[in-house]
Amino acid sequence: MRQVVMTRPREIVVEDRADPTIVEPTDAVIRLAATCVCGSDLWPYRGVQDVDHQVMGHEYVGVVEQIGTEVETIAVGDFVVGSFWASDNTCEICRAGYQSHCVHRTIMGSIGTQSERARIPLADGTLVATPGQPDADLIPSLLAASDVLGTGWFAADTAQAGPGKTVAVVGDGAVGLLAILAARRMGAARIIAFSRHADRQKLAREFGATDIVETRGDEGAAEVVALTGGLGAHSVVEAVGTQEAMMQAIHSARPGGHVGFVGVSHDVSIPGELLFGTGVHLAGGPAPVRRYLPELIDLIWRREIDPGKVFDLTLPLDRAAEGYRAMDERRAIKVLLTV
Amino acid sequence: MRQVVMTRPREIVVEDRADPTIVEPTDAVIRLAATCVCGSDLWPYRGVQDVDHQVMGHEYVGVVEQIGTEVETIAVGDFVVGSFWASDNTCEICRAGYQSHCVHRTIMGSIGTQSERARIPLADGTLVATPGQPDADLIPSLLAASDVLGTGWFAADTAQAGPGKTVAVVGDGAVGLLAILAARRMGAARIIAFSRHADRQKLAREFGATDIVETRGDEGAAEVVALTGGLGAHSVVEAVGTQEAMMQAIHSARPGGHVGFVGVSHDVSIPGELLFGTGVHLAGGPAPVRRYLPELIDLIWRREIDPGKVFDLTLPLDRAAEGYRAMDERRAIKVLLTV
Repeated sequence: MRQVVMTRPREIVVEDRADPTIVEPTDAVIRLAATCVCGSDLWPYRGVQDVDHQVMGHEYVGVVEQIGTEVETIAVGDFVVGSFWASDNTCEICRAGYQSHCVHRTIMGSIGTQSERARIPLADGTLVATPGQPDADLIPSLLAASDVLGTGWFAADTAQAGPGKTVAVVGDGAVGLLAILAARRMGAARIIAFSRHADRQKLAREFGATDIVETRGDEGAAEVVALTGGLGAHSVVEAVGTQEAMMQAIHSARPGGHVGFVGVSHDVSIPGELLFGTGVHLAGGPAPVRRYLPELIDLIWRREIDPGKVFDLTLPLDRAAEGYRAMDERRAIKVLLTV
Repeated sequence: MRQVVMTRPREIVVEDRADPTIVEPTDAVIRLAATCVCGSDLWPYRGVQDVDHQVMGHEYVGVVEQIGTEVETIAVGDFVVGSFWASDNTCEICRAGYQSHCVHRTIMGSIGTQSERARIPLADGTLVATPGQPDADLIPSLLAASDVLGTGWFAADTAQAGPGKTVAVVGDGAVGLLAILAARRMGAARIIAFSRHADRQKLAREFGATDIVETRGDEGAAEVVALTGGLGAHSVVEAVGTQEAMMQAIHSARPGGHVGFVGVSHDVSIPGELLFGTGVHLAGGPAPVRRYLPELIDLIWRREIDPGKVFDLTLPLDRAAEGYRAMDERRAIKVLLTV
């Protein structure tokens, strides 16, 4: 099969690799219907994170081709969506809703789903089957559920977005944009998007943003405080992962407010005095997408949400390198790869 | 009147000062029934925090002697308990339960309640009257509600202590001990206290601790993880304020667990990567004691809890210096000063 490999920063190749097989009796093998490039793939692409001939990709939707002898709830032929963490969905951590920290978890990025086929560990726990074979136009949205939608949803949920709340979103990538969609679905009264790109501002408004702030850092946070009667937002999503973004998020929140952070932290350090002084709640990390998948699939299936709009460039898998370049240069918000 | 002043680190004097008067029409003046020394008073006492002829004390119970013209709900003669933050209890932040961040807040430490009388700003918002004049034996517990009980309660609440939960408590001072009492009242199944002092271990068990861990830092956290089937505690209270205590707290929590931190942060820095990787929820700061006061006063009045046990040394106000020394040398958990 064909599979994307990042040989070193800024070098993406598509190689022929052996088809995956069942290794554990709890595995499934799927044939991908679509996959995509993640904002987090840009960290190694840009050399911020080490990389050496790494298979890439952790988002996936597709059809089950094989199952291990212990797989019970997933059948060959099912169309499935799974999280970027494989999880048993039965351990105490999973049952508490933190499947991304499952005691038996496997990160799908180590397997690589920018490929024609993929082995999915712990298939019963990891995969959720759709009610039937999806119409083609639903596939981008179902693929979004695999990570960016689920991650944005978790961020908004962790930030306690809800009726009557003002929500600010730091980061106008796919996750930030979908956190806006999530906050709107959760009933937020006002959603402030930080963005200085016209195309992203447009999508932010489509997804439910009521205000756009173009400044950043302390200046941007001060603007949110001013927009909220001097108090700050009730809920803030941080979807970047830098020190500046984290400080911007904390300073945008009101005392006792909630920051949900899902940008992969890179050299971020949070002063205890700041957190103590502001009384802001801080929580985040890799999103337990699996917790939300049944609800998200249902909303997509009933066409109540259209998160697939974040894909503004579609390329065949063999042209993955172009997709990475487009995202790196911010010419694309998110790139879908057809398989 | 007599009032405690910290002239410089390790020097406590009791001076004659003018009696307080009504300054704002929303003020009250109380005659204190008792006051006390706080663990946080030890930071300047030990020279970790600057101090120069500072009036001291922020915990108080007593009888209302005067009220301003706009005070409506508090009357002369009422026995009252208040928080260490004066707050209007009507602003948007107060109504959300974060009275310690009230937009009109005043920190009582700037007024000083280790004194015979004190001016209480925003009396209607700040003070809660007891159902009648308390029996003498209730006064230590009511005084504890003013800060250490309310702070321990907030920490346990923020850490989401509750039925079936395992709660670990970092810090065996009065706040940590009362966080144990709070966690027990909230229905925690198991409460692990970090303590290496026999007298504090004894009180921790009286308040509801089921396990004692004598090691600290990473070693202590590893012990909590081992005691909880390799997962960590659901809820952790941090009631110290140092880097070691914060790291011990985060490492003691399970993925997706909650840390409530109320130790006043001193040079604490939290690595974003750690918080991201563990998925631990972190929140704290100065406790909004006012939120809990009606409930706490009720529990004390009905003699359902006895938080006053944390006072293991009672001295007259004029001997405050001895009290500071006893707490500094850990010969006393908490010192009550009679007025």
